[in-house]
Amino acid sequence: MFTDEYFMKMALNEAESAFEKDEVPIGCVVVSNNRVIARSHNLTETLNDVTAHAEMQAITSAANFLGGKYLINCALYVTLEPCVMCSGALSWSQISKVVIGARDEQRGFINKNLKLHPKTEIVTGIMENECSFIIKEFFKSKR
Amino acid sequence: MFTDEYFMKMALNEAESAFEKDEVPIGCVVVSNNRVIARSHNLTETLNDVTAHAEMQAITSAANFLGGKYLINCALYVTLEPCVMCSGALSWSQISKVVIGARDEQRGFINKNLKLHPKTEIVTGIMENECSFIIKEFFKSKR
Repeated sequence: MFTDEYFMKMALNEAESAFEKDEVPIGCVVVSNNRVIARSHNLTETLNDVTAHAEMQAITSAANFLGGKYLINCALYVTLEPCVMCSGALSWSQISKVVIGARDEQRGFINKNLKLHPKTEIVTGIMENECSFIIKEFFKSKR
Repeated sequence: MFTDEYFMKMALNEAESAFEKDEVPIGCVVVSNNRVIARSHNLTETLNDVTAHAEMQAITSAANFLGGKYLINCALYVTLEPCVMCSGALSWSQISKVVIGARDEQRGFINKNLKLHPKTEIVTGIMENECSFIIKEFFKSKR
């Protein structure tokens, strides 16, 4: 039951919430022992804050929940490959697993040769089409 | 009067506040038209949050002050070269100028071949010795 798709679907629900707020639709959840301990979506426009990416909020929120700053035994599910900023934050968090929906060839961390923490497992391509589709729809609606 | 050293001294005062709280002593200020519009220091331990670097707080705070997310015509003065996360945030902010005290060869963004926004001027080596000294003193006190 608790597959990567199961949790990515929840991240996608978050992305849909962002879409409804006219935000670039990216969402994520943080999972610990098959329990969602943080969920968030991009709020850069609403908060007027370039740092308000889904992942940044989720990292802070998960750490608050855990009462410690390291996200050991946690997995983050995010609909779009993290940017440089978010990959840096994930790296500091020492999170155990990062699961990515759609790739971001231009702004994502992978093509910039950045690494996460050595202990972090990276999984890509989970619900890639759905995660990519919502972003394309968003930008299509903007044209 | 409003030299780079003038504002870096203020960033160094912030670093000293961090030191007093037993935080890795890094501080910064954001300046717009020779006026300090945000000041902050590292609070990762106090807030239990890996994202609570001085620069991240200052970017959010400056954007709040300005009422917009882009830090155009702003300069950030920081005592230590920004990490990957903070360089990513600075890049999104399109800040006009970043002034760096001490270099961070290991964790700083420069040696990772990361760029800030094309419009961002980067100045290094302002009060380098003082900015480096306080960090060395901190880690010496930890041994």
